[in-house]
Amino acid sequence: MVQIAVLGYGVVGSGVVELLQKNREEIKKKSGICFSVKRILDLRDFSHLPCGDRFTKDFSDILEDEEITVIAEAMGGISPAYEFAKKALMAGKSVVTSNKELVAAKGAELLHLARENQVNFLFEASVGGGIPVIHPLYQCLSANRVDRIAGILNGTTNYILTKMETEKADYGETLKRAQELGYAERDPSADVDGHDACRKICILASLAFGNHIYPETVYTEGIRDITSDDILLAGAAGYRIKLLGSAALTESGDMDVSVRPTLVSKAHLLANISDVFNGIMIHGDAVGETLFYGRGAGKEATASAVVSDIIEAASRNGNCPFVYWEDRKDHRLVDGSAQKGSFYFRTDLSEDALLSVFPDAKKVCADGKTAWIISSISEKELREKTKEHLLISLKLFS
Amino acid sequence: MVQIAVLGYGVVGSGVVELLQKNREEIKKKSGICFSVKRILDLRDFSHLPCGDRFTKDFSDILEDEEITVIAEAMGGISPAYEFAKKALMAGKSVVTSNKELVAAKGAELLHLARENQVNFLFEASVGGGIPVIHPLYQCLSANRVDRIAGILNGTTNYILTKMETEKADYGETLKRAQELGYAERDPSADVDGHDACRKICILASLAFGNHIYPETVYTEGIRDITSDDILLAGAAGYRIKLLGSAALTESGDMDVSVRPTLVSKAHLLANISDVFNGIMIHGDAVGETLFYGRGAGKEATASAVVSDIIEAASRNGNCPFVYWEDRKDHRLVDGSAQKGSFYFRTDLSEDALLSVFPDAKKVCADGKTAWIISSISEKELREKTKEHLLISLKLFS
Repeated sequence: MVQIAVLGYGVVGSGVVELLQKNREEIKKKSGICFSVKRILDLRDFSHLPCGDRFTKDFSDILEDEEITVIAEAMGGISPAYEFAKKALMAGKSVVTSNKELVAAKGAELLHLARENQVNFLFEASVGGGIPVIHPLYQCLSANRVDRIAGILNGTTNYILTKMETEKADYGETLKRAQELGYAERDPSADVDGHDACRKICILASLAFGNHIYPETVYTEGIRDITSDDILLAGAAGYRIKLLGSAALTESGDMDVSVRPTLVSKAHLLANISDVFNGIMIHGDAVGETLFYGRGAGKEATASAVVSDIIEAASRNGNCPFVYWEDRKDHRLVDGSAQKGSFYFRTDLSEDALLSVFPDAKKVCADGKTAWIISSISEKELREKTKEHLLISLKLFS
Repeated sequence: MVQIAVLGYGVVGSGVVELLQKNREEIKKKSGICFSVKRILDLRDFSHLPCGDRFTKDFSDILEDEEITVIAEAMGGISPAYEFAKKALMAGKSVVTSNKELVAAKGAELLHLARENQVNFLFEASVGGGIPVIHPLYQCLSANRVDRIAGILNGTTNYILTKMETEKADYGETLKRAQELGYAERDPSADVDGHDACRKICILASLAFGNHIYPETVYTEGIRDITSDDILLAGAAGYRIKLLGSAALTESGDMDVSVRPTLVSKAHLLANISDVFNGIMIHGDAVGETLFYGRGAGKEATASAVVSDIIEAASRNGNCPFVYWEDRKDHRLVDGSAQKGSFYFRTDLSEDALLSVFPDAKKVCADGKTAWIISSISEKELREKTKEHLLISLKLFS
C-alpha cells in the first residue's frame, strides 16, 4: 500500500482522488500497487464529505507523515505550490504536479532537488492534459536527438480559431461564446495572449534540449489580432490558422522557441486538430515525425495524467533519471524575427505599390479581400519594407 | 555499463547497434546508463565489420554470458526467436523484441516467464514501428479502463490506399508500384490480406484488456477487393477507406476485435493519416480519445523503439509490472458480423429492387457509378438480404 497526499481539492485534485477510487482495481492489476489517499490539503471546509476526515489545512501534517511517499500538487500558481514541492522533495517524498506555471518557472531547481534526494518530480499533466507526451518524450524517445517540437497546446484558443472558421464568426463574439461555455476564463489573457501555450512549449523544449527555457525569454504572440478575414483568406490559400508553440534546434545548436498564430497546410495533421483538442508533433533523428493527440484539459483527462505519474513515482521509487534538465545560462535563443521563412500578410498598400516592393509575392483573394504570401524572407525584413502599412503578418508552418 | 546482445543483424538488428553507437552520449545523458553491445548473433559472416569480433553463430555464447543482462531479439518469425527468448528469460535476462509474430503468438507465455524470473519482456517496436504506443498504453494510461482501440497499423496498405485515391489508380498497378519502391514484399499477402495488422491489433487488445487474443480467432479482411470505384464513391460520400484494426469492449464485457477496410469520415484524424504512416486511436474512460501517429516501419524508427525498451529494461531492472496479460480461455470474442452498424455497399441489383429491400438506403453516385450506405444493420443481415447480388460491403467507422 502506497500512501499519498493531494494538495488542493479543486477540479484537478478532486479528479485525482475520484479516479484513484473509481479505477482502484484496474490500477492495482496494472501496476501491482494499491494506493490510498491519506491526506488532502485544502483551506476550505470539506468535513461533510465521506472522506472529510482526511482533509487538513496544515501542510506539516503531510510533510511530517513518514507513511506518505508521493504528493500530488494540484493547487496551481507558484506560491505556495513551490515552497510545498521543495519541502516535500527535501523530505524525501516524490512530487507529481499538473501545474505548468510551477514547472515552467522552477522546473530545473525542483528536478535538481528531486535528483539530490533520490525521489521523483513528474509533471505529465502540465502539458497536453491527459495526452501522454511528457513521458513519451523523456522515456520512449530517449534514444533520439529530438530536434523539433510544434504543437497546439492551448484548447481555448484552438476552440476559438475552429469556431471562427466553421461559423464565420469574428474573434470577439467567438471569445464571448467560449466564455459562456466555460472554455475561456472571464479574464482570457493567459489563453488568448499565448502565455499558457508559452509555458507548455518551454516545458517541452527544456525537456527535449536539456536546458531550462524561461517563458519570459520566449517570443509570444496571441490570437487577438486574427480576423475572420484572415481565417477566410488563409483557407482560400489552403491553410488553417493555428496557435502553435514551436521549439527547434538550429544547425548551430541554438534554440528557436516561440508561440505564434501560424498558417498550417490543411493537409497537415496539425491543421485537422479542432475544437478544444491538443496535438503535439515531436521530431527525433531516429523516429522521424510523431504526433500525440487528445483532450488538452478537463478534470478526468488531467487526473489520468496525474495518476499515471503517481504510479510511475511509486513504481520507480526515485529511480527515474530520464526527467531532467539543467539551468545553464550559456544557451542561446535565436532571434526568431531574423529567421527566414514564408509569411502571410495583409497591407493597406495598393497592389502596384506592394508588387514594386515584393515582386514575388503571391496574391490571395476571397470575398473581395486580399492578402499576400511571400517566401524566403525574415519577419524583420518584412516589417522594415512595409512599415506602418503592415496590418498583420503570420508565419507559415514548414 | 550495461552489456547487451542483439539477435539477428538484419535491418532492425543493425539499426539497433548503429543507433546505440550514434546516440551514445544522448542516451547516457538521458538514462544515466552506458550501453555496450557485447554480442551479436547471426549465422552470416560479418567478420569484415569493425565490430566483427562480437559476432557469434552460437546462442549459448550469449545465454551463458553472465555480463549480458538485456537481449534485443530482431530475427523475426517464431522459431528460433521463441526458444531463444524463453531460454534468455529463464536465465534471468530481459528480452526486448520488434517481432510482432512472436508477441502475438507467445506473448502471454513469455510475459509470464519474465514475471516469474523478475526480468522484463518488452515489445514497443512490435506495433507502430517507432511510435510510442505500447508504453503509453501500459504506463501512461494505466489509470484508465481502456475500452476502445482503432488504428491504421500497416504502412504498406495505407500507402496503397492513399495512392489509389490521389492517383486514381487501381489496386493491381498501385501494389506493383509499392513493390517496386520496396514498400511491399514480393509476396504481399501478410500486408494486403490484413495478417500483419491483425497481429498488431491482437497485441494492443491483449495489453489493453489483459487477456491474450490470438490472431487466428480474429476476423481479418484485407484490401484486395477494394476498387478505385469504391475509393471514388466513398470520397463522394465524405469518407476515405482505411484498413483499420479495431478492438472494443462491448457493454457485456465481451471483446469485439477485427481487421477490415473501413470508411472513415474525412473530418476524422484517422482519415488524414496518409502514405506509409500509422496512427493508433486509444480511448480510455478518464483520458477520452487519444491518438498516436508516426512512421510505422523503417530501420531507424524501429530501432528507436527497440533501444527505448533496452533502456527501460535496464533502468527498471525487472521491476516493470505494467506489461502483462493472461492466457485465460474464458474470454469471449463477439461475432462482429452480428453487430449493428452502418455499411457502404455495391450490388448488381437495380435501384428499384434495392430500394424495395432497403427503403432507407442512401444512394451515392460518382462518375456514373452507384453505391449505397445503410445504417442500423448487421453485416449478416445485409448479406442475407442481398445474397449473390452483393459485390462489396464495407463498415463505416463510428
